[in-house]
Amino acid sequence: MLVDTIAENPFITDEDLAEFFGVSIQTIRLDRLELSIPELRERIKHVAEKRFEDEVRSLPLEEVIGEIIDIDLDSSAISLLDIKKEHVFIRNKIARGHHLFAQANSLAVAVINDELALTAKANIQFTQSVKEEDRVIAKAKVTKIDELTGRTFIEVNSYVNNELVFKGDFEMYRSQKNTKG
Amino acid sequence: MLVDTIAENPFITDEDLAEFFGVSIQTIRLDRLELSIPELRERIKHVAEKRFEDEVRSLPLEEVIGEIIDIDLDSSAISLLDIKKEHVFIRNKIARGHHLFAQANSLAVAVINDELALTAKANIQFTQSVKEEDRVIAKAKVTKIDELTGRTFIEVNSYVNNELVFKGDFEMYRSQKNTKG
Repeated sequence: MLVDTIAENPFITDEDLAEFFGVSIQTIRLDRLELSIPELRERIKHVAEKRFEDEVRSLPLEEVIGEIIDIDLDSSAISLLDIKKEHVFIRNKIARGHHLFAQANSLAVAVINDELALTAKANIQFTQSVKEEDRVIAKAKVTKIDELTGRTFIEVNSYVNNELVFKGDFEMYRSQKNTKG
Repeated sequence: MLVDTIAENPFITDEDLAEFFGVSIQTIRLDRLELSIPELRERIKHVAEKRFEDEVRSLPLEEVIGEIIDIDLDSSAISLLDIKKEHVFIRNKIARGHHLFAQANSLAVAVINDELALTAKANIQFTQSVKEEDRVIAKAKVTKIDELTGRTFIEVNSYVNNELVFKGDFEMYRSQKNTKG
């Protein structure tokens, strides 16, 4: 019954399941473990990954730095990156610039509706220090696609707790000018 | 005798050692292996690393992306990065932009003669695709240090086989205005 209920509604919480079956949350958790059903967070991630795998064209999803949580090709995209130990300077625990750049740059690649997307130029600014444990939300917006060359201009703003920490203007190459599939 | 000779002159080649002892190069190599003396390349690397460890102030040497091969604080620095499988896009084997950026950016941090150096802005350009197996030589040059704020301007040009592949202008924060130790 647990398997069926979760299959029907993968986004149901353990709390709701406990209420539904009239048992404790602990029971649900143990049963999930026994049946190897991942927790809600993992299930959401799995569904999200599966969905965007079919959508992103310019690179395999595992090559995106950060986790894509929304994408509309040639228009906009959002990703999140949790800053961990391996992203910060040992001395001051400040996130290293190239990780914020990597998140933004790979989002700029991912948003392009083409098999080939490469960065030509970028103009970037680090507006605030990002620390270990911070969650960085990067928002990419396609501002212009040159009709002739296909050159694509993308603005990426990254936030921690709604405060701007990074902004970048990217100019990207692509192999063809637009959504030709 | 081999141990002593190499200790005295760590940069001696196997060829020179063979000539010196009147034996074959093969003999020298086998003896080195038996005595666990690394080959010349490794010895050079070791000495180089040791030397720059004392010199670079703004970050531990292992946090520099690439290998520093020359540095003159607040003036210039050179590093090399060998592009391997983990640096390229799976599909086209082209080096991902953030690795070239990381090499240049960390060199810009390393060249600064201060305990604290952070990137404020960067204006970058990818002028040519870099492929797996390429060796990227990044050259950083400090072009200006603002007298009042200590804001430091650094130009980094990266080359593969003497061809420009990346250029970046970095504007860096530091904690104090110059070489105060």
